[in-house]
This record gives sequence, C-alpha cells and structure tokens, in this order.
Amino acid sequence: MPDPLAEVRQELATANRILANEGVLDAFGHISVRHPTNPDRYLISRYGAAELMTADDILELTLDSKPVEPTSARLFSELVIHGGIYQARPDVHSVCHHHAVSVLPYCITGVELVPVMHLGASLGGKVPFWDSHDEFGDTPLVVTKPEEGRSLARALGEHWMVLLRRHGATLAGRSLRECVFRSIYTCRNAELQSRAMAMGSISTLSPGEAELCSSHSLTPRTLGRAWEYWAFRLQKAEAATARAEPRPPRAKAGLNKAPARRNKAPAGRGKATARPAQRPAASAGSGGRKVKRAGKR
Amino acid sequence: MPDPLAEVRQELATANRILANEGVLDAFGHISVRHPTNPDRYLISRYGAAELMTADDILELTLDSKPVEPTSARLFSELVIHGGIYQARPDVHSVCHHHAVSVLPYCITGVELVPVMHLGASLGGKVPFWDSHDEFGDTPLVVTKPEEGRSLARALGEHWMVLLRRHGATLAGRSLRECVFRSIYTCRNAELQSRAMAMGSISTLSPGEAELCSSHSLTPRTLGRAWEYWAFRLQKAEAATARAEPRPPRAKAGLNKAPARRNKAPAGRGKATARPAQRPAASAGSGGRKVKRAGKR
Amino acid sequence: MPDPLAEVRQELATANRILANEGVLDAFGHISVRHPTNPDRYLISRYGAAELMTADDILELTLDSKPVEPTSARLFSELVIHGGIYQARPDVHSVCHHHAVSVLPYCITGVELVPVMHLGASLGGKVPFWDSHDEFGDTPLVVTKPEEGRSLARALGEHWMVLLRRHGATLAGRSLRECVFRSIYTCRNAELQSRAMAMGSISTLSPGEAELCSSHSLTPRTLGRAWEYWAFRLQKAEAATARAEPRPPRAKAGLNKAPARRNKAPAGRGKATARPAQRPAASAGSGGRKVKRAGKR
Amino acid sequence: MPDPLAEVRQELATANRILANEGVLDAFGHISVRHPTNPDRYLISRYGAAELMTADDILELTLDSKPVEPTSARLFSELVIHGGIYQARPDVHSVCHHHAVSVLPYCITGVELVPVMHLGASLGGKVPFWDSHDEFGDTPLVVTKPEEGRSLARALGEHWMVLLRRHGATLAGRSLRECVFRSIYTCRNAELQSRAMAMGSISTLSPGEAELCSSHSLTPRTLGRAWEYWAFRLQKAEAATARAEPRPPRAKAGLNKAPARRNKAPAGRGKATARPAQRPAASAGSGGRKVKRAGKR
Repeated sequence: MPDPLAEVRQELATANRILANEGVLDAFGHISVRHPTNPDRYLISRYGAAELMTADDILELTLDSKPVEPTSARLFSELVIHGGIYQARPDVHSVCHHHAVSVLPYCITGVELVPVMHLGASLGGKVPFWDSHDEFGDTPLVVTKPEEGRSLARALGEHWMVLLRRHGATLAGRSLRECVFRSIYTCRNAELQSRAMAMGSISTLSPGEAELCSSHSLTPRTLGRAWEYWAFRLQKAEAATARAEPRPPRAKAGLNKAPARRNKAPAGRGKATARPAQRPAASAGSGGRKVKRAGKR
Repeated sequence: MPDPLAEVRQELATANRILANEGVLDAFGHISVRHPTNPDRYLISRYGAAELMTADDILELTLDSKPVEPTSARLFSELVIHGGIYQARPDVHSVCHHHAVSVLPYCITGVELVPVMHLGASLGGKVPFWDSHDEFGDTPLVVTKPEEGRSLARALGEHWMVLLRRHGATLAGRSLRECVFRSIYTCRNAELQSRAMAMGSISTLSPGEAELCSSHSLTPRTLGRAWEYWAFRLQKAEAATARAEPRPPRAKAGLNKAPARRNKAPAGRGKATARPAQRPAASAGSGGRKVKRAGKR
Repeated sequence: MPDPLAEVRQELATANRILANEGVLDAFGHISVRHPTNPDRYLISRYGAAELMTADDILELTLDSKPVEPTSARLFSELVIHGGIYQARPDVHSVCHHHAVSVLPYCITGVELVPVMHLGASLGGKVPFWDSHDEFGDTPLVVTKPEEGRSLARALGEHWMVLLRRHGATLAGRSLRECVFRSIYTCRNAELQSRAMAMGSISTLSPGEAELCSSHSLTPRTLGRAWEYWAFRLQKAEAATARAEPRPPRAKAGLNKAPARRNKAPAGRGKATARPAQRPAASAGSGGRKVKRAGKR
Repeated sequence: MPDPLAEVRQELATANRILANEGVLDAFGHISVRHPTNPDRYLISRYGAAELMTADDILELTLDSKPVEPTSARLFSELVIHGGIYQARPDVHSVCHHHAVSVLPYCITGVELVPVMHLGASLGGKVPFWDSHDEFGDTPLVVTKPEEGRSLARALGEHWMVLLRRHGATLAGRSLRECVFRSIYTCRNAELQSRAMAMGSISTLSPGEAELCSSHSLTPRTLGRAWEYWAFRLQKAEAATARAEPRPPRAKAGLNKAPARRNKAPAGRGKATARPAQRPAASAGSGGRKVKRAGKR
C-alpha cells in the first residue's frame, strides 16, 4: 500500500538538501511543510544537519510539535517556531528557519531589509524584527518554549519573513517551493543590499513594483524553473560525491536514532552503500569504535 | 543531411553553460545569437536555467520573437530584450541578459560602471542606465512587452551594455564569443571597481587607453584564448558530475516540453543516461510522480 | 594488541581535515589534543598541512613539546603554543592555532571580537590580544620559544581564545570537538561582525545571553550534530577526489619522513593507493625524481 | 637520453596549474623560470590559460624573448615582462605576472600594499608602482615592447613585487617555489589588508619583523610545506575531474599549435584520453567542426 505522504517526504528531504547546497542551511536551521491533507499536522526532519536528510528522516508532528507516532529519533529544540506559525497562519504551508551569512548582518545591526531587485521582492511588503530579549529577557536565544514560538508568530504577523535579533531569520510560504524560493532570494537580496549600501545610496522597488514583482515570481511557472535549477545543481553535487556513504557512521551514544522504518527500505542514496570499495576511508567517521567495525570489511 | 545550424546551436548551448559555470547566469538570465545566415532570425534556448541547456534546447525565432517552427517548448517572457536589440542594431550578433551579483549594486545605486583595468575596457565607452519606471510606471520590472524591448534598445543606443535599474544588465556583442567575454569581464570589472571604491579613490582608464584595451581584447586570438579556458573549466566541472542525469525529471505539468526532435538524437551529455546505475537517487527529482516512475528501475 | 590511542589519533586526524575543509586551516596552522589518560602528554600531527594528515601522522609529545618516542618526522616550530597552554590550563584538552581570513582583520586592527549571534558566543566572555612585540621586540612573529609560549598562555588567561597581533588566533577547548566547534564558529562570528560593522552599528549579546548561548552550544548533543555535519562534508569532499593519491610524493630531501609504523598498516585512505590506474598524473608531484619513479609504472 | 630540462618543465607546468587552482591566474597571466644551467635562457608556457598547461607546453626562450628552437606554438604578447626582469636582475630565477582580484584594487586606487601579517611579509620591504602612461602615454596597457619591459624592470628595481596601475602585478623570486609562495601570500595579504582597512586603522609589521618574517618563510622547509599542500590540492582537484579531456579541442584555425614533440609522448594527464567512454560530451568543445570529428571516435 503506497504511503500517501511519500511524495511530500521526498520533496521535503530534497528541499533540505537544496537549501544546504545553496548555502542557506548548514549544521543548523530547518525547513518544514504542513501535512498535505491534515492541516493539524506538519512534517520536518529529525534533529541534524539539513544536508544529511533523506525521506526516511522526515517525521510527522502535531501543531503543538509532538510526534504523531512514537519515535526514538531526536527532535529539534526549536520546533515551536514551526508549530507556532502553523497555528497562527492557516495560509502558511511551509516554514524555514536559518542563520545565513548574508542575512545575519541585518539581525545584528537592525538595518531594515528592503527589496532592491525584482527577485528580492519575494520578501513581502515588510520584514519585521523580533527580539527575544524584549519579552523574555536573557535566554539562550534559541526559540524552544511554546510562548516564545507564539511571540515570534505574532511578530511575523501577516508578513512572510521575520528577523530574529542576534540570531537568524524565519520565513513562511504558501507552499514548500515558495518557501524555498523566498529563502534563497531573500538571501540574495540581502547580499545585494549590503553591497549596494557600501557603494552609495540605494533605490528600492516602489510598493507597486514590489507587489507586481512578487506576484510574477511566485507563480508555479517561475517557482518550477528555479526548483528545476536547484534540483539539478543538487543532483550534480551529489553525483560528484556519490561514493560517499549516504550518512556518516553514527556516534556511539546513538546520537540520532533513526525511525524504525529506515531499515526496511534502503532506497535512494542507499545504493551507494552497495559499493563499499568506493567508500571513502573510515577516517572521516565520527568515532573510533565505528572505525574498528569498518576495519573488518 | 547535416543541419547547417548544428554548430551554432552547439556553441550557444556551450555559451549558456559557460556563463552559468562562471557565475553570470543562474536560474534566470539568457543569451542569444543572431542566425548566422539569416539576419532576420535569432537563436535562444527554451525557457529554463542556462546550466541545463544543450543544443537540442535551442529554438529559432523571428526578430519579433516568434518561433519559426511550431513548438511545444515554453519560451522566456523577456524575449523582446533580444528581439528589440537585434532589430535596432544590425551590427549586434549576440545578446545576454543577466542579474549577476557583482553588477547588481550598480543597478541599485546608480553608480556609474567605468573601466578600471584593461580587460574591463570591453564594457565600451559608456554604460547607460534604463529605468522602466520612467516610461512605464509600476511594472513587474521584467521586460515583456515589445514597446519595453524597444525602449531598452533605445537606451542601449550605440553602446554595448546597459544597466536596468533595480533589475540587471543587458549586453551585446559583435559575435557570441565577444558577448560572452564582455559578460564575464564586465562582472570582473564591476567587482574590482566596488572593491577599489571601498578602499580609496579610483583611477579609471583614459579614453584612449580604454579604446586601445578594448580593441586588444576583442580580437579572435584573445577571445579564443578566453573561450578555450572557460570551455575547459566547464568540461572539467561537467566531468566531475557526469554521473548526474543530463537533466532533472520534468515536473508533472510538462513544465518544459522539449522540441520533438529531442527524442531522435540523445547525443552529447545524453550518454550519461546509458549508465543508470550511476545515477544519483531520484531524491533530487522535482516531483513525486516522477519519483515513482524512477522507482520502477 | 590494540593501540589504546588509535581512536584519538583517528579523531584528531579527522579534526585536522575538517578544519582544512571548512577553511580554518590551510598550509599553516595546527590542532592538538591532550592525551586521554596521561595529562602530561599531548598529540599533534607531524609538520605539514592539516589537509594531508591521517592517523599515522599523529605524534605523542610531552608538555614541554618533546616527542615521547624517537621519530624521524619533522615537528612544527610552534609546538610551544600547545605545550604552554596545556601546562597552564589543566582544564584545556585541545588547542588550535590558525590564520583564518575572517579572523585576521581583528589581529591587524585591534578591533575587539564580540559575540554577535548565538553560535558565536562560544568565543567566551572576552577575547584578549597578545602582541609578541610588547615582550620580545622584533621577532619572526611565530611562537617558537618556551618563554613565548608561556607568555601567550598568560595572555589567554582563563579565556578560550586569544588574538595574536599581526599573526593569527589561538583557541582552546575542554574537548577536541569543543575546540573544533569554537574554531569554526568564531570564524563565522568574526565574518558576521565585520559585515555588520560595514552596514551600521552592531548589537552584541548581553553578558547573560552570551553565557546561556555558550552553554547551550557546548553540549555533547549540539557538538555532535555539528561534528556529524562537518564529517559528512569532509567525507563527501574526499570521495569526490578519492582517486587522488593519499599524499603527494615526498620531496627528495625527505621533507617529512613518516614514523616507521606507517609502512605497516596502509589502512584508511591508503586504499586509494591500490588503484594506481586512477591516480592523477605525476604532474602535480613535488619533484622530478619522484616523477621518474612514477614513470616506471 | 634524458632531457635535462624535463624536471623543470614538469615543475613549471605544475606551478602554472597551482596558481590557477589557487585563484591567482585565470585566462590571463603567466609564470616563468630561468633556465637551470644557462642563465641566458628562460622557460615559459605557450600562449594560453595556465590551467591548461602541461610539461609539453613549456618553451625555451632567450632573454630577449625569442624561442630557442623554431616553434609553431603561439607566444604570449607580454614576454618582455619576463625577459626584461631576467636581464636586469641576475638574482631572479622566476617571474609571475597576474591580475588577481585581491591585488587589483591596489592597482586601481594607488593604496600602498604593506605587510599586515607574518606570511605577507614575503612581499618584500616595499611594493613600488609602475604606470605605463607616465612614460608611454595611451597604450593597450599590456606590456609588449622591449622598452616597456625594461621600464617595468626599472620600476621593480631591487624589490620583489611591482604593481601596474590599472592592470595587475608582477612578482619575482629567487626560485620557482619562492615566486609561487610570494604570488599566493601577497594575494592573501592584500585581501586581509583590504578587509582590515574596512574595519579600522591597520597596524603593519615593523621593518624588523617584516625582514625576520620574510626570512623565516622563504626557507626550503617552509616553501616545501606550502608547495606540498598546493600540489596536493591540485592533485585532488584534477582527480575529481580526471575524466575531462586533458585539453579542449583546438579551434579550427590552429589557435595553439603545439610543439611537434607533443605527439610523441602522451604521458601524464594524457592517460585520461585512453578512457573515451568517460569523456564529457563534446558539447563543451570550442567549435562545431571539432565536434564532428569527435563524433567519429
């Protein structure tokens, strides 16, 4: 019996790796998508870096960020960012949280991020700021409590992107592809605005231009063209390193226990596992015990 | 019977991928070439990212940007940029339109782009600005109407590069290789001018130097040396990722139907298709349905 | 009989190559770890670039930086940086010294490095400066004398990072993974602080935030997640180039004689050696004599 | 009978590709070495991008830049840069000329390049400027006439690096490896100085420090370590793309006819040619006619 969510898991895993490949996500940050048929659920990967995620790593959560099925997988500590926005915004179907180098300077200086070119207009009419210190005082800055998630969602309001002071950015989209597009092109717009500010005084899109540009970009046609490009780039990057094990050996302490179903279907990138002779040396592994086992091959 | 255009299609496809590999084009932007024997036609790829284009993706258009033969392929919405310039400038044989990161700050600030080193002199004596808002008011900024294309061509005038405010750049060349060279080295010049402006006051080439430098660079010898280099780099980049499918699976809705002739001759990069075992997982594919089909392998 | 240090050697070699792959170390710079059971010893690679190091290249030294066993391997000239800090700071279990591009501007200008985002808080409460000229006058700047090492350790004091004027940075950690994390994320923080300073006035974490953020980042869970990511990226990078010889031919003069044990167990990356047909041409080799020998294949 | 110059040719070809791989040379720029036994000769590659050069591409010239043996290979137009310096400076054994992005802003602004970190001290005590306009008025800026080469050599004087206004840099070394080291680390120093200047006021090495640092870096030990590292990186980069043809198809017009001896010994990278099935498609080739021939294979 086909898993009705298989396509969505696959697409979300690809979105994770696209955003890693395009430099938006690194060891940290995450992207989620609302359940396609049950608006009271959303999907997100297990705890870990986006670049490592495959369809098997995608979990299903309720909007208060509890796993629908019992799992031994570790969860992100900042799930309330996602749950909080899905609860507050029925029109949002995807959420991304990141700390990209191009956007962080705005979080550090408080300079407003404004649309400076047509593709950057996808940032929406306004990008508000949220400073956790205003309401919660000294914290580790990560957004882990439900009330923090709700506060951030209120700051986002009816917009599509919010900047977290001294921390990062959170974006929403009406679809996964819109959220990926907005994540990448707001980074581009941020980079261009910074470079332009270093050269002279900047001109921004007029409100009318911004709205027309955003509408033009966020069509299935344009989103599909960009997705096709990023997926092709990802595919090439992964082909170049295909001999790498699909995932590094896990740490001894069971850092990221995978959902039980993983063992059933080693599909997708798992093929590479069938070519052990081409594996890179265990030397990049994360622990010596693992290395010893590898040595038995 | 050999196709008299085969060489031109091949070279234009290579130019597409060179400009992607050198960071000038990404998901967006395009380059075209005038038909080698019929000056009332030009060639340009189907709708899509330059990095994906092969000779089979090249279409032939009239100067009012209509396909010469019926095609199911999607077309760029900004074709009038190309048609408009070919109509206005018989001496132009190639046109490129892009949004490169190095050049956009000039489009955002209005700072004049000037030749600061010998290779940058290929930008021509002057780089005018065009602001769509002046004549057309609020638009999505993309140049889609014939009158917009004509207006842009008038702004280009007798020059070789024009900057589109809050949008990008459009360049022309007497040949495809000249247009590629100008596209890459004006990006380099822009990057250097920005860096130099951040350090102190800049010195530009004298008008005499600029003219002599431009003449020196735009010879077949120098253009050939640069092309040989970029083609070698492209070749290496594509070899490193050769196991990648030549193109990602198409979206369900037939996002980019290819010209019928594609199915005849799966030459070129299509060879990789013959090694399915080396394909990266379908996980980078663009849609779930496609994934299922791939799963049948 | 298993080598009780094998795991540590392996992990330190991986740390070397992770820091190279992430742009912290290049031809110069080094990372060490205190001996896991004997606090009067530490481990560090032989003389050479971090990117080349495997477990076989790891040597064991006393805290006054003398090899425990006789070795024909060349040693770094700046070992006293490591020995000096291990002597002064029993709580330190790993030391890294580097000249990363993002951090050097602080060493050149004397601008204070401050935490501007949560992950950057791992730099600790304060990053002091050390100027070798203050105490030792004109030197080659490299830290080679025991008294220089002790002076630097005093400047580090109870902190976790110290900047060496006109030279580089030295960092410490309670574990190897903490030291790697701090090395990478202080580079990131430095880059972000520089970019933010170019745009406007910066806001830093409050002292309370900085302490909470640092504690949150430096847990085994978070350190493990980041390490898993960097190890995966390294693994992929090494897979892409696996046909490269594990190490370049040595220079004739025996530039880096390896410990004798190397010849016993050509494990790990050494597998690549078994595929001579895939070796890149000897043309990248470091000397002609080597080239001739290679020519006999 | 072994060619006494084989090792030098090999090393110079490697130096060409190292400088390309490290971003110093691109389509333009060149490096040469004085003949090891005949000080009245020097070696340099044929006309073309450094990244393409193998030992077979190295030519032998007199100090007035005439080929020692008749050749059908094209020559660089700026050979007089090399010949002029070898004539003026018997202590110089290697010369490099480049247009690297990090150094050009100094050529455009006239800001003095000064040592800001220990490895950058290899730039020597002072980096003078040369402006071709002062003596020769409007020119194409490229240094092609013997009197221009002599003028540039006079500007270099007893130093090791000279900046050419609105053009690039020329460096000299007592050996090939010293020249490569200086080329790479002056680019690094330039990048760091620019970044530091954007943040605050810079401190430079004291004259005494600069001299001691330079002496420390330019020993065979340190030069060997850096060369080992760059050669390893090159080897890995070339392994990743080994399926690429060793050189792209030549243009029809015989753009770069190779010396006759090339056909005898297709060694080195030529091995890749034996694996035609792995060649990337001809689509990256430089011309359609070539493509047709390739199709016959």
